[in-house]
Amino acid sequence: MNSPELDPRLIEDSYPLQRHLGFAMTAWQPDFARIEVPLAPVLMNRQGLPHGGVHATLLDTAMGFAGCYTGDPDRRQMALTLSLTVNYLAQAAGTRLIAEGWRTGGGSKTYFAEGRISDDRGATIATATGVFRYRRME
Amino acid sequence: MNSPELDPRLIEDSYPLQRHLGFAMTAWQPDFARIEVPLAPVLMNRQGLPHGGVHATLLDTAMGFAGCYTGDPDRRQMALTLSLTVNYLAQAAGTRLIAEGWRTGGGSKTYFAEGRISDDRGATIATATGVFRYRRME
Amino acid sequence: MNSPELDPRLIEDSYPLQRHLGFAMTAWQPDFARIEVPLAPVLMNRQGLPHGGVHATLLDTAMGFAGCYTGDPDRRQMALTLSLTVNYLAQAAGTRLIAEGWRTGGGSKTYFAEGRISDDRGATIATATGVFRYRRME
Amino acid sequence: MNSPELDPRLIEDSYPLQRHLGFAMTAWQPDFARIEVPLAPVLMNRQGLPHGGVHATLLDTAMGFAGCYTGDPDRRQMALTLSLTVNYLAQAAGTRLIAEGWRTGGGSKTYFAEGRISDDRGATIATATGVFRYRRME
Repeated sequence: MNSPELDPRLIEDSYPLQRHLGFAMTAWQPDFARIEVPLAPVLMNRQGLPHGGVHATLLDTAMGFAGCYTGDPDRRQMALTLSLTVNYLAQAAGTRLIAEGWRTGGGSKTYFAEGRISDDRGATIATATGVFRYRRME
Repeated sequence: MNSPELDPRLIEDSYPLQRHLGFAMTAWQPDFARIEVPLAPVLMNRQGLPHGGVHATLLDTAMGFAGCYTGDPDRRQMALTLSLTVNYLAQAAGTRLIAEGWRTGGGSKTYFAEGRISDDRGATIATATGVFRYRRME
Repeated sequence: MNSPELDPRLIEDSYPLQRHLGFAMTAWQPDFARIEVPLAPVLMNRQGLPHGGVHATLLDTAMGFAGCYTGDPDRRQMALTLSLTVNYLAQAAGTRLIAEGWRTGGGSKTYFAEGRISDDRGATIATATGVFRYRRME
Repeated sequence: MNSPELDPRLIEDSYPLQRHLGFAMTAWQPDFARIEVPLAPVLMNRQGLPHGGVHATLLDTAMGFAGCYTGDPDRRQMALTLSLTVNYLAQAAGTRLIAEGWRTGGGSKTYFAEGRISDDRGATIATATGVFRYRRME
């Protein structure tokens, strides 16, 4: 993917759950990240709707990357989620979920983030807040 | 699976995300449900740890079933998650995550639940609270 | 107080906790409310800082009013908080806390809101999300 | 107050918001604290019910003390709240709110807690979870 919002040098190999659920990063900037997933049949719950765990996964991911931007592919920052709150505002119409995360505050040890999921028609589907702890990187 | 905590008549066909992630219900009683998942490689995140979205998925599922027990396979109750908060206390050791959910209050339209994930060594890995809305079933 | 954001006809008598803590509404528009409080000594905690419960009180109040705007002083809408999450980003400097709340979604029975507290120097002190249930008004 | 759950040597002078709202500690043990408040008229909201901010204040307080027990009045531990989630299960009947908090996990820098409010008839009124950061004490 070629986007002014995602420096190709920062694109990482996808990790196992990412491949398994099919999501991809489409933007990564200081304090911001965007993650998107097509609404594939495997993501559906007992009611035939996207499982709330999918929203939580995307929001955790987007907010996690938002706080870990370094701009340097050789210097990776990692974080652990301390707390995640997701509010489910509406059911998605359309064919994909688009999760965006913003770092909103914090310091060198912990940070705070907000997130939002919209569908590809622009409706807000879910919102989130999270608290994260930076891992000390060697 | 044969368990005094899970009436075999209540075992439902697994749904898509359930099959895809590999989790299974091992208990379903009034106001209580237990969901378990082996820690398969596909569940891992960028750091090689179980992705926080997996915990959220299991907790949402366990709390969702906890509030929807009817005891009657012909009368299914469904619910939508309004809000989900997950706290991540520790990293899992062992080979599986065990999520339990309890309905803690509410009425005929909304309900509240708490959840907890332990690993198969008994350590508490994550806790959760949630607010759910019952769907009107025909 | 005279503000284009607060129709004087909508100003209500302050209620007991409001008087006791000293907060006041300074804006009330469709889906939006602002509540402010001077940082009086009585609001301080064991550490001499504004107690986190004060932030929670203001955010609950701002988000509660945000979802209950009717524009008609004779038709009051009330709501009950189902769930409230507050993240504490920074310590307030300055002399007052300014809490703003926005209704972000929902329908006729429940609604979702977000909130934010800044101090009078403009720093973000806390953020919040909430889920609320409308009371049926006669 | 004389209670086997509260060592009289640990009773601190009440702090400003505590005096202003009228709450008192009635138990403080390792990883546990209990805070109680009479439902005085000043705690009421626009609807004549105890304001949700009161519940949040008590739960934040109980969970905060729960993680800061040292057993030594000369060695005080303090903590800052990072994130607080409160679920409002029911309206209080009776004359007082009783908030209990438990430290559930964490380490030397951050900790997790759960809380619960009941009224003096034993009904669960609210539950909470929180993430806290220890302050470095000199």
